[in-house]
Amino acid sequence: MEFSSKLIEQAVNEMAQLPGIGKRTALRLVLHMLKQPAEQVKFLSEALLKMREEIKFCKSCHNISDEEVCDICSNPRRNQSLICVVEDIRDVMAIENTRQFNGIYHVLGGKIAPIEGIGPSQLNINSLVEKVKLGGVDELIFALSSTMEGDTTVFYIYKQLKGVEVKISTIARGIAVGDELEYADEVTLGRSILQRVPYENAMKSS
Amino acid sequence: MEFSSKLIEQAVNEMAQLPGIGKRTALRLVLHMLKQPAEQVKFLSEALLKMREEIKFCKSCHNISDEEVCDICSNPRRNQSLICVVEDIRDVMAIENTRQFNGIYHVLGGKIAPIEGIGPSQLNINSLVEKVKLGGVDELIFALSSTMEGDTTVFYIYKQLKGVEVKISTIARGIAVGDELEYADEVTLGRSILQRVPYENAMKSS
Repeated sequence: MEFSSKLIEQAVNEMAQLPGIGKRTALRLVLHMLKQPAEQVKFLSEALLKMREEIKFCKSCHNISDEEVCDICSNPRRNQSLICVVEDIRDVMAIENTRQFNGIYHVLGGKIAPIEGIGPSQLNINSLVEKVKLGGVDELIFALSSTMEGDTTVFYIYKQLKGVEVKISTIARGIAVGDELEYADEVTLGRSILQRVPYENAMKSS
Repeated sequence: MEFSSKLIEQAVNEMAQLPGIGKRTALRLVLHMLKQPAEQVKFLSEALLKMREEIKFCKSCHNISDEEVCDICSNPRRNQSLICVVEDIRDVMAIENTRQFNGIYHVLGGKIAPIEGIGPSQLNINSLVEKVKLGGVDELIFALSSTMEGDTTVFYIYKQLKGVEVKISTIARGIAVGDELEYADEVTLGRSILQRVPYENAMKSS
């Protein structure tokens, strides 16, 4: 692609570094910005910069936060003895949207993935183990994705907590609500039978 | 969508204003930026701001440019008496990429579209008409999209130039190279027969 302007070229190249945005899309976005009032682009540019430079991570759960301790951790109405362990900030948002969870979170920041060079020390695992060892935590719910990396991460933390008195559970795996059985994969369908729940419990959905 | 951070929310909202980027994609992009070094985000943010604030439009052809007059208009090896009239900056890039055109351009900045409230005065039409009336232009090639708005725009300019001595042509419409006839629409196929070209000319493709 040839640009008649270095300024455009630079803007396109920077935009195209974002995941899922190729050069063509980047150009479309940049040309759109050119048609917008300069203020609009200033707002965008400043919002991104400010977000990146001022964002804090909650001291306690490592969720993104505008304060030292996030709104969830500092909320007295949340159950501080029930911790849901997730990979990512997006998982916190997804679970919050269900309005089914009243505990607090612990964001690991990823999964153990030796192939990508991510070991336990790069994740927020130590702070979780210490928090549990300090006491006051009744249960850890692991809500990690059901992949080899996710399972490895859960197992690693499980081993670290050997001997510590805390209940450890994982979110239920099964057939998604509304899905048809015949299209479910065998592993999920198999697990959903082995881990069947009493009918009365299943009805307590919300 | 609920955000635990106002900074994130603002960044997502600004990103989601871009065309084709929804809230979910915006969030994915913003969270990606959070994982990047702060410098990377600074580069992006500054490139966008700089581009929007410092970009110039060529005085002569209205193409984007880093100088008062763009590289194409100021190139002595380009034929200044042959002007290709296009809607958009992207069209200039597309035609430049073919390396088949040695004239200069005139960027209208859009098409006449009364429904969207775009009249001739919002487009760079006057400067084109004046340029042609001043003399020195042998031919105008209209390379606008073949829609009602495109045709209206060409017709409007054509009328403005009545009595002015200049050759006016439009790019050829026809079956795309590599396309199969049976899938072509009737109008295009019909035109491609009416506007057939001598075989020897057709072979001079590049």
